[in-house]
Amino acid sequence: MGNYDIIFGHLEREGKDFVSRIEGSEPLFICTIATTETAKIPGLSAAGAMPEITDYTPPADVELLYYGRCRCIDGVPVTPDGIPTPALITMSALRLSKIPCIVVNGGLRVTPKAPFFDVGGNPGRDIRTGKAVEGPGEVFERSRLIGRQLSKLAGYVVVGESIPGGTTTALAVLMAMGVDARRKVSSSMPGNPHDLKLKVVDEAFKAAGISFGSLEKDPLKAVSCVGDPMMPAAAGLISGAAEEVPVLMAGGTQMCAVLNLIKYLSPGIMGNLAIGTTRWILEDKSSDIKEIASRIAPVPILAAKLDFSESRFSGLRAYEKGVAKEGVGAGGSSIAAMVSSGGSVTKASLLGEIEGNYEMLTNAPPR
Amino acid sequence: MGNYDIIFGHLEREGKDFVSRIEGSEPLFICTIATTETAKIPGLSAAGAMPEITDYTPPADVELLYYGRCRCIDGVPVTPDGIPTPALITMSALRLSKIPCIVVNGGLRVTPKAPFFDVGGNPGRDIRTGKAVEGPGEVFERSRLIGRQLSKLAGYVVVGESIPGGTTTALAVLMAMGVDARRKVSSSMPGNPHDLKLKVVDEAFKAAGISFGSLEKDPLKAVSCVGDPMMPAAAGLISGAAEEVPVLMAGGTQMCAVLNLIKYLSPGIMGNLAIGTTRWILEDKSSDIKEIASRIAPVPILAAKLDFSESRFSGLRAYEKGVAKEGVGAGGSSIAAMVSSGGSVTKASLLGEIEGNYEMLTNAPPR
Repeated sequence: MGNYDIIFGHLEREGKDFVSRIEGSEPLFICTIATTETAKIPGLSAAGAMPEITDYTPPADVELLYYGRCRCIDGVPVTPDGIPTPALITMSALRLSKIPCIVVNGGLRVTPKAPFFDVGGNPGRDIRTGKAVEGPGEVFERSRLIGRQLSKLAGYVVVGESIPGGTTTALAVLMAMGVDARRKVSSSMPGNPHDLKLKVVDEAFKAAGISFGSLEKDPLKAVSCVGDPMMPAAAGLISGAAEEVPVLMAGGTQMCAVLNLIKYLSPGIMGNLAIGTTRWILEDKSSDIKEIASRIAPVPILAAKLDFSESRFSGLRAYEKGVAKEGVGAGGSSIAAMVSSGGSVTKASLLGEIEGNYEMLTNAPPR
Repeated sequence: MGNYDIIFGHLEREGKDFVSRIEGSEPLFICTIATTETAKIPGLSAAGAMPEITDYTPPADVELLYYGRCRCIDGVPVTPDGIPTPALITMSALRLSKIPCIVVNGGLRVTPKAPFFDVGGNPGRDIRTGKAVEGPGEVFERSRLIGRQLSKLAGYVVVGESIPGGTTTALAVLMAMGVDARRKVSSSMPGNPHDLKLKVVDEAFKAAGISFGSLEKDPLKAVSCVGDPMMPAAAGLISGAAEEVPVLMAGGTQMCAVLNLIKYLSPGIMGNLAIGTTRWILEDKSSDIKEIASRIAPVPILAAKLDFSESRFSGLRAYEKGVAKEGVGAGGSSIAAMVSSGGSVTKASLLGEIEGNYEMLTNAPPR
């Protein structure tokens, strides 16, 4: 195995095996985007400066990947403090390594001004209705078809996500399926609002008439009650692709919820999976991705050893304080960029590219 | 070059060069589907037994490719005489050779119950309005992006189409751009209604305020006035993919209209193109694809040497009488199946697979 800026954070041997298997083959990056009204609950998500803005974050993220600029909004998605979307990292990783990218719409209120796969999904409702997602089974099946078709061409597939509010829906689905993830899911904000998330999940469970573990073996019901529309799309893509090739699940604790769906929907493909995230998620003290994953299945966790502490830009240094952390497959796409380039893409060359793109997109002077 | 059941019908040397270039590499088949109200003009199209059915033909065709059965209609699309869609050929070619397939929606009234790329297109209006297609420029650009992304993975790309009424819109766009294709476009019916097509084009030109050749150098205007929504999507996909890899334009005279768009939109990639069709188109006495193509550019024409004359089924033998002839990339996908299998897929093995699928889908007894 070559030398890469990757931390083998969980199940080191399996993680290194995974990297050995993908070395020398061509990746495809698929970004799964969706929205849920859950994101608009005040205080829950940092993905938009205002709750209504969360409808625009996923389409703006993928416009950035395709065009190097957003089209449905001015500038780029930022947190309330002005910290830029992790799509900036993904965009930089894909450009450095020339990895192809496609987008799957799991269910959006605002579609991107860019091409995307339609899999029949609808935007998600507030999980406090207990009826969060319509028709997840059909979305899963159509997405699995895409995964199967594209895995005939790619050496491996990297599946990322962008959905504001997604850690709360992840918590809800994990809990409904009997995985105790209380105070363990991550957040795009430095202060992880665990109490608020638990309150929202509690209300969602009451509305759906479910309880901890009551949907342990009914993943699609768990999604339809308290999940989000990214989940069945990502689970389908991963399931279909992993029948043929290795799949890197690019995300933080949200991908643990997807992993738990796959555990029941496609148990035969678990050996083809790894989670790829960022160092900021792996080292986050307010969440515990390793503990959640270990309660689900022996799937390794890799983390891109990104380090923005020496960046010229305060907007990037903020990532070291726990802002954003992950999203849009930032960690997984960075890992794929490093491995597919044979190690010539490093955390240093990535930071250079990210800073260049940040400067271009925000006209920010170094400070 | 290996030995294949392919006719080099036009520019033989260039055609053989093209096949040599794609030998040993992995194809991707992309089916571009759309609808136009033009198809509902009585007498123009055989793609549906009744005019309203033409809305369902393209989605049903791609459902057949993905699932081996249609979902939005019972049975399979048939001509008024009950002759099955050429998607049956494409489905068989893709299955025999395990070629991956994706679908791009250029603009549909009825979307398939299957995954497809959305490129922002809208269903086409009757060209007699003179305002046939909305926003072809944006559809072209988004489709080109898909072509660019996917050509990073595929060795070559095969682009087919399904749009009822498409030869009439092809005639209109060719004429608007100064290519005299009168009585030269093909038809899915044995009696090619040239007079009716010319009358429709004449009315369309009057409504649009254009004349023969008046839009010679304005391809997008020609599409927006008198074209159909398949055209900008197919032209974009082909243009984007052919920047990197060879592209087989899988279709009959409709692909000549797309070729003429590309001649002006992406002149630099013409050397990466060939047209791939069926023997029934190449040998059709009521149309002349070679003459149309030669008026556009020196692009070779290959034809799959399909022969249904000895079929056990009258519904397939009808193809020898000039019914259907081509569509859904039947000829091009057959050529790709032959070449990508190194010649182990032949016209005989294809017919066997087609007959098996025909029997399964229609429960027809041999007769």
